[in-house]
Parts: sequence; structure tokens; C-alpha cells
Amino acid sequence: MSDDTPIAKAPRNASVVVVGAGDYIGGAIARKFASEGYIVFMGRRDGDKLLPLKAEIEAAGGRAEARTLDAREEEQVIAFINEAEAAAPVEVVVFNIGANVNFPLLETTARVFRKVWELACFAGFLTGREGARVMLPRGRGSLFFTGATAGLRGGTGYAAFASAKFGIRAVAQAAARELGPQGIHVAHLIIDAGVDTAWVRERMRAAGAPQDRELLQPASVANAYWALHQQTSDAWTFETEIRPSGEPW
Amino acid sequence: MSDDTPIAKAPRNASVVVVGAGDYIGGAIARKFASEGYIVFMGRRDGDKLLPLKAEIEAAGGRAEARTLDAREEEQVIAFINEAEAAAPVEVVVFNIGANVNFPLLETTARVFRKVWELACFAGFLTGREGARVMLPRGRGSLFFTGATAGLRGGTGYAAFASAKFGIRAVAQAAARELGPQGIHVAHLIIDAGVDTAWVRERMRAAGAPQDRELLQPASVANAYWALHQQTSDAWTFETEIRPSGEPW
Amino acid sequence: MSDDTPIAKAPRNASVVVVGAGDYIGGAIARKFASEGYIVFMGRRDGDKLLPLKAEIEAAGGRAEARTLDAREEEQVIAFINEAEAAAPVEVVVFNIGANVNFPLLETTARVFRKVWELACFAGFLTGREGARVMLPRGRGSLFFTGATAGLRGGTGYAAFASAKFGIRAVAQAAARELGPQGIHVAHLIIDAGVDTAWVRERMRAAGAPQDRELLQPASVANAYWALHQQTSDAWTFETEIRPSGEPW
Amino acid sequence: MSDDTPIAKAPRNASVVVVGAGDYIGGAIARKFASEGYIVFMGRRDGDKLLPLKAEIEAAGGRAEARTLDAREEEQVIAFINEAEAAAPVEVVVFNIGANVNFPLLETTARVFRKVWELACFAGFLTGREGARVMLPRGRGSLFFTGATAGLRGGTGYAAFASAKFGIRAVAQAAARELGPQGIHVAHLIIDAGVDTAWVRERMRAAGAPQDRELLQPASVANAYWALHQQTSDAWTFETEIRPSGEPW
Repeated sequence: MSDDTPIAKAPRNASVVVVGAGDYIGGAIARKFASEGYIVFMGRRDGDKLLPLKAEIEAAGGRAEARTLDAREEEQVIAFINEAEAAAPVEVVVFNIGANVNFPLLETTARVFRKVWELACFAGFLTGREGARVMLPRGRGSLFFTGATAGLRGGTGYAAFASAKFGIRAVAQAAARELGPQGIHVAHLIIDAGVDTAWVRERMRAAGAPQDRELLQPASVANAYWALHQQTSDAWTFETEIRPSGEPW
Repeated sequence: MSDDTPIAKAPRNASVVVVGAGDYIGGAIARKFASEGYIVFMGRRDGDKLLPLKAEIEAAGGRAEARTLDAREEEQVIAFINEAEAAAPVEVVVFNIGANVNFPLLETTARVFRKVWELACFAGFLTGREGARVMLPRGRGSLFFTGATAGLRGGTGYAAFASAKFGIRAVAQAAARELGPQGIHVAHLIIDAGVDTAWVRERMRAAGAPQDRELLQPASVANAYWALHQQTSDAWTFETEIRPSGEPW
Repeated sequence: MSDDTPIAKAPRNASVVVVGAGDYIGGAIARKFASEGYIVFMGRRDGDKLLPLKAEIEAAGGRAEARTLDAREEEQVIAFINEAEAAAPVEVVVFNIGANVNFPLLETTARVFRKVWELACFAGFLTGREGARVMLPRGRGSLFFTGATAGLRGGTGYAAFASAKFGIRAVAQAAARELGPQGIHVAHLIIDAGVDTAWVRERMRAAGAPQDRELLQPASVANAYWALHQQTSDAWTFETEIRPSGEPW
Repeated sequence: MSDDTPIAKAPRNASVVVVGAGDYIGGAIARKFASEGYIVFMGRRDGDKLLPLKAEIEAAGGRAEARTLDAREEEQVIAFINEAEAAAPVEVVVFNIGANVNFPLLETTARVFRKVWELACFAGFLTGREGARVMLPRGRGSLFFTGATAGLRGGTGYAAFASAKFGIRAVAQAAARELGPQGIHVAHLIIDAGVDTAWVRERMRAAGAPQDRELLQPASVANAYWALHQQTSDAWTFETEIRPSGEPW
């Protein structure tokens, strides 16, 4: 738990849904929106792992709910979003599940290919559709998808992961074109870098990469989403990208 | 059966696999490669519908096999390609299954979203992987994917279709980067137009569109694939696009 | 002059350079950064036209300088940026000159083609290079380019304009890749819509388009640049786009 | 002179214009179209350097004319294309001038930036416009532009070169959209690799790169253009790319 958790602002009668509220990006998004006064509904495959974050947010005066959620299951997604909506009108839905794997093509099993798609694409479709369903009657709301470089480029070994990330980018595009004129701001945020997580630091250590290079901080992703949500409807961004200043691209 | 079926050239000891050998594009591809002397293995969900095409090809002196194939089934894809390989070394594999649907996002069911992906993306992954498996030991061969505008742009109502077409484009990219240096030419051919089929003509009639506008002919897609297969390995194309001269884009 | 001009915040010892400070976007950018406490150096082909804006900014407690500048002239660009640097260290440079013309290809004269390029591309190169020259020694600063849809797509009749906008986008990309690791944040902001100007309203009236459709407000462009300038260096955006919620794309 | 120059086919009453007929790609294009029976008009800054190629083509039974041409000069471009048209109706126009330079941004002089643009972009605009002028009345013809990776990506040090290549790509796009419906096939061929030239081999030697890696052969570029010119108008390609099988991308 970070010492610098901001004090939550005055509560708003609005909820934010974070599907894929992991230890890093999703957690930072939850923390940020909670600090802005929203009730944050956090879903994750093992909801118990969210309890420390929920406690942290509440200690700072915010509101958060932690749920076990398998976002590949349509009924669970519907129930999760409906529960948030029942607590307070859903204003923001963020889909943040990744599933980064790398295998040579011949070693990419049908099971892996399907599972990665279910996690990173199909679950995002369900989340987006159900988020839209509760926000559309009010004609306002934000629907955000966390993307990656692999959503733009299919590199060697990334048949499964890139395919899923390309796929969810298409869902986001189609949703943006359909829902924008109806008042829903759909955005696809491309994170073109390693994010500062224990896993990435370990991989860099193993590769002999310098430990002090600049990594993208989870809080910066949260700030990027916050900036998107602040945009006025005459100037919405659908797609944008963030990367550290030193990242080659 | 068309009168202008070309006489088959001298037989080659090589086979061409066409997954998704429908009445139009896939059929034209089969006809073209058969006319160039290849044994063409054609797969389609209802293999009996391929019998007239097989008869036509054989009447022109060519060789073709028609099989019932559900390309979403891993074992069926493996068996189909292995059978072709047993008949003659596989030199070209073409994945040509589309699944064009358009629904508002809220009316896109999980079942439709999944089915379109299985047909247009997952089956393509299986086809590409198994095609690569038999061609790689020889260090040569072509692996081609039929793409569409929806593989580059997620338009309103195309969450399911665009997602699948984006997804298979990613598979093709990853495969190209991995397999190119191993001698396999992977290409993604974007057909940015309506193809001249009974269905498209009917839709145009319903929309009051002029019947005499230029439609892309299936034989032209086959010629585009033939041109790709003729490229020398110092100058391979991964991605290209074809559209009629009068098509707005 | 708008009634809602914000009161300027505490002065900063830093200047912002706006090349192409016209009545709309460039003016809004100048107003925004002035309100944040910067000294804004505004350049325009006829500097006298900037005097009302300068007066407005000063009346609100801000600081601005208005200069006549032909940004196609290397010496003038150098002198303009050096003057800003002498007044206070340059922290932000914005290049905002457009030159939207549409002619059939055969009617696009060499003179027009060259002039549009000089205004929208060459001047941007000079501005970017000279902005970098003064900011690089401090290892910090922002270099922003206003882009347009025509920077991504060459539509019918836009050979000259799109060519120039593609060209400046390339300059921005090359600059971003080279200067990012040296601490300069380069960004290219794509404005994918008509901006609410007298000229656009007139064109819409002539075309019979609804007058009440949502147009992109100049102040929103300024806000977008402000958000970019606020990004931390672990999460910089190079390219982003803004458009009204109702804009087809 | 190569021993394998093909024997020219029966002469056609049609001419092909190659602007930028250098020692490698442009020369190979000239050789190819001459071998197909066209009268080839070759232009180059020092026309005398074209005399060996002209002699080679004529020795093989073909027809070629060599001219000194500074394609940045409007009057020269007009005269060159008019002369070709007077000899035989122009059927194909190829713009093939490159100007690859790499400088850090601060060391890119205004003179270099302008010169690279004039060679690689402005000259291409003039060539395309004048080519279109003579071909449009017949409603048929091909207008081809040689592109490069730098036309899609502005890498470090390529502000000048990428800007020019982005710019000419925009011209090609705008021309394709305007002229396609009028029967002119416009295409932009991206050469994503080093081409096998003395200069490239020397650079590779200096960099210690293996000499036997696969380089793109000039004749393969010519074949790619020939394939584009053979396309039927129901299935034209605007943009395609070629690269060696082993090229990383």
C-alpha cells in the first residue's frame, strides 16, 4: 500500500467499473477514480486478492467493492455491472484484462489460443456491451479499453496475444463509431511499453537490462484514463498511446 | 460451370489446400491453381456442394478433391491437411472463410460473437499453423489469408466481424514475421470491395444501387493470389489490397 | 474577446511559443498557456491582428507578445524563438499553421503545391528544429504539432494539403524518436473534425448542413495540448486524435 | 550490361515514362517494360549515364530514349512527358526518384530539407500530374510511385527523407482516389528493404553485416510493377509492399 494515496474527494453518486483490477494498472485506475469520489467496483478472478486495495481505498476515505469475477462468463459480467449500477449510476467502465503469452506458432495450442482470446477479447466484448447497456439510457458515460502494442503489430510469437488484442481494438472501434453519437465516450489506450511491475522488473533483470531505465508507472495509466474522462464531447479521443520518453518505437 | 475454364497445364507433384472453398472466391482460387497443374484440396462445411466444381476442374483436365470440413475443429483441419500432404507435398495453403454479420452492439449475442470468431479467426489460426507444420520441413510454401476492409477498420455494427478479421490479420502478421525467414511466404490479401456474388448483387438491387457498377470478380482474387505465389523470395509481399477502380475508399 | 477568459495564475519564468497564432486554435492555445502563467510569444503573418488577443490576455493578468512572423523564413523563425528564449526559457513550442486547399490534381499548380508545403510543412520543420535547439540543453520541453485528418489520409483533391500534412507528421515522428530520449516531449495532435470557426460555419451553411451540429471548440484543442504538457515522462503520448462525439469517421 | 536481357517482344504503340531511371531500380523498370515491347522514355539528371542502358535495350531489340531531366523543373517534366506522348501514347508513368539522407534534426539544414522534398516529393507531384494529363483523355493508364519504409515511419534522423516520402505517398493517395474512377491505376509500391546496389553492399560491408544476406533485386521491383500493370480494373491495388524473406520488420 502506498503512502501517497490521495484523500478521496467528496463522494459522487456514480460508480466506476474496473474489469481486470489487478495489482498494477487496474489497481491504479481503481485508486484514482476512488480518490475522485466514485464508488469503484473492482472485479478480478480471485476477488480476495482485492481486499487489501479495498481496505487501502477505504482507509483514505474512498469507496470500493471487490468481487470475484470471471469476465469470460456472460452472466457474471451482467450481474457485476448490474450490481454496480444498482449501487450508483455507472459512469465509467474500464476493461483491463491482458493475457500476454509468447509461443512459436507451431507450439501455440488451440487451448491457449482460445483462452487468450476469451480473456483479452471476448471478455472485453461482454464488458463493453454490458457497460453500454446501462450507460446508454442516460446518454453519457465512458467506456475504456486498455490496449497494447500487440494490438497494432503482430510480432513473432504473438499469434495468440496479438490476435486477441487486435480483436478487442476492433470491438472498441466499432463501439466508438456506434456509441459516440449516442453520448458514450469509447476510448482505446495503447500502452506501448513495459509497465513497472514485479514481473517486468524480473524479466529485465533476467535479460540483463538496466534496472534504472524508465518504466511506465501504473499511476500514469490511471492519469491517462482520468484525462480521457475529463474531455468534453466536442473533442473526444478514441485512440491514444503512452510510452516512456526513453522507449524505442 | 463456366465455358472459359482454362485447360490444365502439365500436372505438378504438389498440392494446394483451400479452406473455405465456397461458390465464389474460394472456388475461383481452386480453379486457378488446378489450371496451373496442382492437385487442389477443397474443404467446405458441406463438401457435397463442391462436387460440381470438382467435376468442372476434372473435365478441364485438372485434379481436385472435395471434402466436408468444419475448420473450427482442430482434428479435422489436421486430417485434411495431412491428407493433402500425403497426396502431394503441400505448396500453398489458402484460408478463405468469412463470416460477415452486422448487428448493433447491444444485439450482438455472445453466441454470434464467438461463432464469427471461430469461423473467421480461430479456424484460420488452425489452418495456418497446420499448413506451416507440413511446409516448414521443406523450407518453402505459401500461406495466404483472405482479408477484408473489416480487418483494418471496425465500422458501426461490425464488432463481431471486424474483431475476427482484425484477429486473423494479427495471426497472419505474426506468422509472416516468424515463418518468412524460414522460407514460408505468408500474405494477407485485403479485398476492399464487394465481390461479384449472387448475394452482393441482391443486396445492391435492394439498396437501389446501379447493377452495372464494377464489382470485384472472384477470378481476380485468384489471379492476385497467383501473382503473390509467383514472387521471388527477395521481394515478398505480406499485405496488399485490391479494389475496383470505381470503389470509393 | 470572451467573457470567460480565465484569470492568469501566478507568473512562471517560462515562455511558450505559438507559431500560427490565428483567430481560433492558435489563439486558444495562447490564451490557455497565458492563463497558466506563461509568457506567450505569438507569431502570425500579420502580427497586428494579434493585438486584440494580446490585450485580452493582459487584461486578464497574463503576459503575451505579438510578432509578425513569416515562418517559412528561417531567419525569422530563429529570431522569434531566440527572442522568446531571451525573455524566459522556452518550455513549449506549438506549430499550428494550416493551409487547407482543395483542387483537382490537374488544377493544382506548382506554385500552390509549393506554397502549401512551405506553410504547413517546411515552416513546421524550422519551428521544430529551432524549438529543439533552445530546449535541448535543458533536457526538457514540449514540442507540439497540430495535425489533421489529411495527415493520415490523402483524399480526392487534397494532393497539396495532404502531402504537406503527411510531411509534417513525418517530421514530428522523427523528432519524437530522436528527442524523446533527450527529454523533449514531441506530440502530434490530430484534429479530426471541423473546428468551430466563422469559415467552417459558413461552409456548413453553404452545404445546407445543420448549424447546430457539434463542432470542435478551439478551447478544447488548447485543453488537449495542456493535458499533453502535463504528462509525466514515463507516459508520454506521441500521437492522439480528437473529434466531436457526433463526427462520422 | 547483363547477359540475361530478355529479347524484346513485338513492339507496342505505347510508351512508358520512367522518371528517375537510375542504375538500379529505375533501370530495371525500363529494361522490363522495353522487353515487353514498349518504347521507354528514361529521364535522369545526367542523361548521358543512360546511354549504356539505352544501348543494351536496343541490342536486345527494344526501344528506349534517354533524356537529361531535372524533374524538379516543371517545364522539363512537361516537355519530357509530351515528347513521350508524341512518340507513342503514354501507358505507364513511373516516378522513381529517391533522396535518402540521414541527419540529426539540429543538423538538418533548410537547404537539405528543401532539396530532398523537391527531389522525392515535388518532382513526383509534377510527374504524376503531367502523366495524368496525357493519360486521362484516353481513360486508361498506370501511374506508379516507388515508396519506401520511410514513407510510413519517420525514424530517428529521417526528418527530411521521411517527410518527403510521406508527402509523395499522400500525393499518390489523393491521385488514386481522384483518378481511379476515371480509369487511371495509381499505385504506391513500398520497398521495405535494402535493394542490391553497390552502395548498399558497401554500407553493409562497413557495418560488418553478412554479404550473403538476401537483398532485394532491382529486377524484382520491375516485376512487381509489371504485375500491378497487369491487374484488371475490377481489382486494382493501390498500395503494396515488398521485402526479402529474411528482412526483419
